[in-house]
Amino acid sequence: MRNLLVKIAYDGSRYHGWQVQENALSVQTVFQSALERILAEKVELKGCSRTDTGVHARQYAISFKTTRGIPCQSLVFALNRFLPGDIAAVSCEEVPEEFHARYSCRGKEYVYEIWNEPVRNAFLENRALHHRYPLDVERMNRAASYFLGRHDFSTFCTGDRREANNLERTVFRSEVTREGSLVRFTVAADGFLYNMVRIMVGTLLEVSRGRFSPEEIPEMIKRKNRKAAGPTAPACGLYLNRVFYEGGEDEWTKKRI
Amino acid sequence: MRNLLVKIAYDGSRYHGWQVQENALSVQTVFQSALERILAEKVELKGCSRTDTGVHARQYAISFKTTRGIPCQSLVFALNRFLPGDIAAVSCEEVPEEFHARYSCRGKEYVYEIWNEPVRNAFLENRALHHRYPLDVERMNRAASYFLGRHDFSTFCTGDRREANNLERTVFRSEVTREGSLVRFTVAADGFLYNMVRIMVGTLLEVSRGRFSPEEIPEMIKRKNRKAAGPTAPACGLYLNRVFYEGGEDEWTKKRI
Repeated sequence: MRNLLVKIAYDGSRYHGWQVQENALSVQTVFQSALERILAEKVELKGCSRTDTGVHARQYAISFKTTRGIPCQSLVFALNRFLPGDIAAVSCEEVPEEFHARYSCRGKEYVYEIWNEPVRNAFLENRALHHRYPLDVERMNRAASYFLGRHDFSTFCTGDRREANNLERTVFRSEVTREGSLVRFTVAADGFLYNMVRIMVGTLLEVSRGRFSPEEIPEMIKRKNRKAAGPTAPACGLYLNRVFYEGGEDEWTKKRI
Repeated sequence: MRNLLVKIAYDGSRYHGWQVQENALSVQTVFQSALERILAEKVELKGCSRTDTGVHARQYAISFKTTRGIPCQSLVFALNRFLPGDIAAVSCEEVPEEFHARYSCRGKEYVYEIWNEPVRNAFLENRALHHRYPLDVERMNRAASYFLGRHDFSTFCTGDRREANNLERTVFRSEVTREGSLVRFTVAADGFLYNMVRIMVGTLLEVSRGRFSPEEIPEMIKRKNRKAAGPTAPACGLYLNRVFYEGGEDEWTKKRI
């Protein structure tokens, strides 16, 4: 059996996240149907993470085993013929038998995008949060820097899906930047808790408008209480940006993880 | 009666162009319904141009007369509450009584965008043409430069909508540039014939792959025959980018028109 790693990108606007759900269209459902049509056999997909309804992915990794000998390049080509326009197959490679898109993952990078203009952007519907008042990016960036390092991120986790232990994560990139009218929060970590990025963003927005000071973030983390943080920002601005694997082609991964 | 000029932007993916059409959703239909709901009176809209199904606008101008005293800023705000997410009101100003969004227009700028990568972009479905083979931008740009100046553009006009005379237009900007994987054709003129930009693009693509040389463009123009040019490129990559009026805020307008 070959073990294949396929990377895709998708606009999540019309999907209920990655994971198969009853009575709702998921990226997995659509991808699996395209793949099985091409391979003419059942496959069991391992996705690198769950993503919420409306969340996008500039890079999402899927691994699966197949008995078929189809060349990697042909599979990418075929997938792009069968997938709808809002899901694109980007690459395919053969990986060792033990590779698993989720368990082998060493880290992920998310980007949250905010359109920061009085008037909304007709081209960013469902693709960025619209925030009409000027954001204090310097202040937000200072706050974001306090996420760096290894912490118990209970404060930044929606309660009902907490796993028993294991709420510690290492954040190795956390910054807020502006490019014209677009404000971006980029955060990379060895793993993320449920809603972690969206609660971070909701908190950073409150930092911008003065409800919290950047220096309160460490105390907020220490409290290990969801109520200490700001609200959960909407899904539409969130992008899974990169997925890191050991020995992956990403130079940065090797240096930082 | 006040005469108002409203500028909007829209993602044209789900619209059958600007103009009201029977049994098809147009931007005008949607805009008019939002506007009349706010003003609580019938209005007659003057749009700056027809646009085809699936064509987008980063700037589209509409003028109309109203008896209402609503401040311009409030109208923009209200429009953005009533318009769907893929149409945004950008600005509103009071203009002289004789101003007409179409007849007062001194020129327009269109941009045509091409995603030039082997793999398509999940975020540019309906928003850019996907061209998988590397484009020769230098060659395309050289060809585009021959569109500059005053010419009879019959060759670049779909036949069945030609107006009797008046097929001369002055092109004052025409260039092809690359920004990463995105190739852009930018063209500004005092007016455009039906499908003119899309036929120019179809021709530039043929220039890239060697069917025409850039130096053949002047002869192609002289033939005044649609058959001399390349095919009509799809609508999805086309954006109305700017609309120029005398005395407008656009410095460039004053200098170039």
